Amino acid sequence: MYFYQDKFMPKEDVHISPDDRGYYFGDGIYEVIRIYKGQLFERQRHLTRLAQSAAEIRISLPYTIEQINAILDKLIAESNIQSGNLYMQITRGEGPRSHAFIPNTEAVMLAYCTEMVRPLEQLQNGIAVITIDDTRWLHCNVKALNLIPNVLAKQSAFEQGAKEAILHRDGVITEASIANFMVIKNGILFTHPANNLILHGVTRAVVLDLAAQANIPYEEKAIRLEDLSDIDEAFITSTNAEITPVIQIDGILVGQGTPGPVTRKLQQLYEEYAQLDI
Amino acid sequence: MYFYQDKFMPKEDVHISPDDRGYYFGDGIYEVIRIYKGQLFERQRHLTRLAQSAAEIRISLPYTIEQINAILDKLIAESNIQSGNLYMQITRGEGPRSHAFIPNTEAVMLAYCTEMVRPLEQLQNGIAVITIDDTRWLHCNVKALNLIPNVLAKQSAFEQGAKEAILHRDGVITEASIANFMVIKNGILFTHPANNLILHGVTRAVVLDLAAQANIPYEEKAIRLEDLSDIDEAFITSTNAEITPVIQIDGILVGQGTPGPVTRKLQQLYEEYAQLDI
Repeated sequence: MYFYQDKFMPKEDVHISPDDRGYYFGDGIYEVIRIYKGQLFERQRHLTRLAQSAAEIRISLPYTIEQINAILDKLIAESNIQSGNLYMQITRGEGPRSHAFIPNTEAVMLAYCTEMVRPLEQLQNGIAVITIDDTRWLHCNVKALNLIPNVLAKQSAFEQGAKEAILHRDGVITEASIANFMVIKNGILFTHPANNLILHGVTRAVVLDLAAQANIPYEEKAIRLEDLSDIDEAFITSTNAEITPVIQIDGILVGQGTPGPVTRKLQQLYEEYAQLDI
Repeated sequence: MYFYQDKFMPKEDVHISPDDRGYYFGDGIYEVIRIYKGQLFERQRHLTRLAQSAAEIRISLPYTIEQINAILDKLIAESNIQSGNLYMQITRGEGPRSHAFIPNTEAVMLAYCTEMVRPLEQLQNGIAVITIDDTRWLHCNVKALNLIPNVLAKQSAFEQGAKEAILHRDGVITEASIANFMVIKNGILFTHPANNLILHGVTRAVVLDLAAQANIPYEEKAIRLEDLSDIDEAFITSTNAEITPVIQIDGILVGQGTPGPVTRKLQQLYEEYAQLDI
């Protein structure tokens, strides 16, 4: 079942208007929320970020957070998905193509759930990544529907036999194409500060909380490409990737080329926190 | 009449799929072509740029240029519009949401014509503009459907009583939110070079051709915000704006605050070139 523009309906009945500003301009925001055991994981953090993204690009949410919660509850209940994703996006509305806002249009919300199993093999064995120029706009903190550079970076990774692309601006590493990036060096966790150059990942925040609780020191400080030759561990974090070890970067092994102990410890803490029993 | 995904149909029958990558990612490209006297103006340059944009972000056009020409011809003929626009966009295709390309999907084309009269009042009297930070991605030469910063810049201009926003990166002026920007100083025309930081406007190219033919010297060289206090004339160029004089920037008059002689000369040459009889 889909939710689209005030109603629940089968996917076949969802007819996006060619005048939807999401289609003309990518003029909208989105969230992907993990479903574990039939429940939305970190729902509140996702909805808070949704509201922040909307405010940043001046989209008025079409519903209150309470109404959105009720919509999501119904989607989850009807879909009966135990392990999966809830995808939702909100565009600025419909109207004849015009860059400036159109008065009196209402934002359009689309939402649905899909099944997904945890990426257990990658969580266990880690992934290879490449590095690539970060050519995105300067509001990467907004979870917006302007995603061409992310699309191209992810595709490049796949074509080079890797699973993700680590982005850098003139050598300063920001994040991955659809995840945040963290490294461990001498027992300290480093990740890019949560400013306008990265998405403020929900899983990123969870991991930093878990690190603090476990007395793993961390610094929100960007590292450079040349620092990668000298790190002990690396991993990416995202709603779907959870904490996925990075064992190879541009063909060069990270540490021993196997997931490291701090990464393993954080994975374990994450599974406990999310109450995943595997 | 609309063209959508291999067929001609009324607008009401155009049902964009929620799985269209244009809707998820803004993953597509577009063109706006001016219709003068029932003919597409600079059709070849627009279609060349369309193919370049597609190549830059690796979208395979769903039709040959000959087939696209036939589609546009039919839209023009059926619409019977004398003065207007043809809008066309091509997205990477449809499929379950996934950043990486989906094999074996075909790009989706949407196209239609709308009536529009020339903005004669603005062409005559000029417009006021504001200046604003250019926070876009680093592939502005691609005419892509990732347009949130352009949307926000244009809206800011309107809210400040201006018609356009001139963008700058750390003080270096690139272009306007939906147009190129040119200035005249001591009889020389200056505009940002056609690199990755600006759209390579069709009207921009026409104007530089006309300048060359009229022995108006020009330099493709960026100017800075602080240079604006010392220019004689300014104007924007685009398919819809043609050559629109800029008479005020951030509340300060350009020159005498009226369209200048070089701007007027170029407007006249443009009207002759496009065979507009006004």
